[in-house]
Amino acid sequence: MEFTKLTEIELPAAFDAHVHLRDGEMSQLVTPTIRQGGVNQVYVMPNLVPPVTTVQQCLEYRDRLKAIEPKVDYLMSLYLHESITPEVIREAKKAGISGVKSYPAGVTTNSSSGVVDYETFYPVFAEMEKQNMVLNLHGEVPSTPSHAHTTKDSTAITILNAEPAFLPTFRSLHEKFPKLRIILEHCSTAAALEAVRACGPSVAGTITAHHLSLIIDDWAGDPFCFCKPVAKTPEDRDALLKAVVSSKGKFFLGTDSAPHDQGKKRGEDKVAAGVFTQTNAVAYVLDALEKGVERSVIDEKDISQEGLEGFFGKWGRDFYQVKDELNERVVLKKGLAKVVDVLEKEGVNVRVVPFRRGEQTWSVEWK
Amino acid sequence: MEFTKLTEIELPAAFDAHVHLRDGEMSQLVTPTIRQGGVNQVYVMPNLVPPVTTVQQCLEYRDRLKAIEPKVDYLMSLYLHESITPEVIREAKKAGISGVKSYPAGVTTNSSSGVVDYETFYPVFAEMEKQNMVLNLHGEVPSTPSHAHTTKDSTAITILNAEPAFLPTFRSLHEKFPKLRIILEHCSTAAALEAVRACGPSVAGTITAHHLSLIIDDWAGDPFCFCKPVAKTPEDRDALLKAVVSSKGKFFLGTDSAPHDQGKKRGEDKVAAGVFTQTNAVAYVLDALEKGVERSVIDEKDISQEGLEGFFGKWGRDFYQVKDELNERVVLKKGLAKVVDVLEKEGVNVRVVPFRRGEQTWSVEWK
Repeated sequence: MEFTKLTEIELPAAFDAHVHLRDGEMSQLVTPTIRQGGVNQVYVMPNLVPPVTTVQQCLEYRDRLKAIEPKVDYLMSLYLHESITPEVIREAKKAGISGVKSYPAGVTTNSSSGVVDYETFYPVFAEMEKQNMVLNLHGEVPSTPSHAHTTKDSTAITILNAEPAFLPTFRSLHEKFPKLRIILEHCSTAAALEAVRACGPSVAGTITAHHLSLIIDDWAGDPFCFCKPVAKTPEDRDALLKAVVSSKGKFFLGTDSAPHDQGKKRGEDKVAAGVFTQTNAVAYVLDALEKGVERSVIDEKDISQEGLEGFFGKWGRDFYQVKDELNERVVLKKGLAKVVDVLEKEGVNVRVVPFRRGEQTWSVEWK
Repeated sequence: MEFTKLTEIELPAAFDAHVHLRDGEMSQLVTPTIRQGGVNQVYVMPNLVPPVTTVQQCLEYRDRLKAIEPKVDYLMSLYLHESITPEVIREAKKAGISGVKSYPAGVTTNSSSGVVDYETFYPVFAEMEKQNMVLNLHGEVPSTPSHAHTTKDSTAITILNAEPAFLPTFRSLHEKFPKLRIILEHCSTAAALEAVRACGPSVAGTITAHHLSLIIDDWAGDPFCFCKPVAKTPEDRDALLKAVVSSKGKFFLGTDSAPHDQGKKRGEDKVAAGVFTQTNAVAYVLDALEKGVERSVIDEKDISQEGLEGFFGKWGRDFYQVKDELNERVVLKKGLAKVVDVLEKEGVNVRVVPFRRGEQTWSVEWK
């Protein structure tokens, strides 16, 4: 299509396969913005404090989210943890929980209860495979500790090569459990995309809105563009843009929208990792595609209505084996919305600064 | 020496070959901390606002610094700019100015008046060579603009490869002006060290205290560890540590201590680049060397009294062809000082958070 000439586009409401809705006040603030972003169905991350590790916690969490915004379909996940047994997996399946998220210990927000050794969980993965549940991988290995002895034989792990260094584990999990549905979450490198493409049809990757725009220079010195995995090189970003338009179902949207109170982003010594994109999720992707066409990274004739509908909804829903029960459509209009400067709400004591605050983007109207 | 067993060391007062003392209130705050760090002679950077581009400005700036702290010897520099002509170079030499600092346009704090094309300045460099002045290079090329078209034939420049990408320019300047004394400032990559080693005796490199400790993971999410050039990989940091102990005069201390008001580091959207190390300059290097020995990166038998005296003073003074006129000595005692949480001063409205604030380090006593 002549994508850059479009001023308006109609799409089925989107499925966002990776959202952080938090709990308490923060969830009151961000959950209502799901629909503002053009999304009516989400896969909810379980990294609360404490993490969501039981079926009961998970269902209660869903009820709290539904109470805040009933017009969204919440697919739920458990947090991979030593208390998750094959028994819990069977119970979760019966309760309608969709998957299990694996965080390597210590790599991102609230991941301190995460996985140290994947083999420990082979019985859990085997049961997940049997029960047809989805395994969501945060695909990074922890950085080499700063006190570690240097060896000439191995490259130290930093936030730059943490994702490529995880790929052997990713591949071995797929090999060991070929029918287990696995998602490599928030792919941020060309190497990760290649690894996903090399796997069978049980494996897919999600791509965030912000990794389609950002590179390392953008988050160096900008707390609101800093997330894990960190945005990498222009070549990596461009590989992600190409993966969106050539996805054929292998990649779909998972924003990893990650709200933090603005005080955690500026004002403290350390900056919390996470970019908040929920309010304008679909619009950010459309903008990134347009910039990709302008930079000659992608050809607009490779952008199609079918491809956009796939990336924003169909392919993710197909992978999760869910329908868009709400069956809604949205109309987006170019440049007619402004990203809010700060997301706030009366009676709520947290405030979140969104990605590209104050900038113009596509508006969203629900039909 | 058995470096890690040392609890006390006596050294000649140090020469810091790269300091940012700013002007106005900030200079009132930071200039008195030079001696606190164990230093009595400094090479002062000219990136004020506006930049120091005339001999008169430069001498007046030195007078202001002397008025704040008379017990420091200030070697002065001009800011390479279109108004700097061979005539200005001759005038500068007569006035006792030591060198000229070149900033590529746009790469760091107050560099917007910097160099776009080095060839333009060949007549200036030729006159500097004749006048025996020092050319200080900020060795980075600007990042590829975000709107630039992607080409398959060239790697885009980011803050990660900006220094290696500058090395061909560095080498060509040395080739073209083989007797021109050139310093590649704040080397941050193994590639830069190698390039300096490959040059003749008219070329040296400076190494900061913080680049001996930091890697990319440290500044990601920590405004007080964020500087330009950014700290790179563990392999790069370890190459810097090795360069200190194997320097043989090719590398010496230039802290690039760069104060910013704490509000520019946290509290604003964008984070100013710069790590402030002036208060504990020598001590930070001693700590980094100790960590390097503990990690087996360097062997403590390669650390000698002569090598430390060289890195901290003699080699820099030799390169700049200056003497330590003050002829003072300092005694450092391990772990007996605490880095202040914030540097502040009555009547001064800026406050600076130093590197490793609140941590223990070596104390400095003047003999």
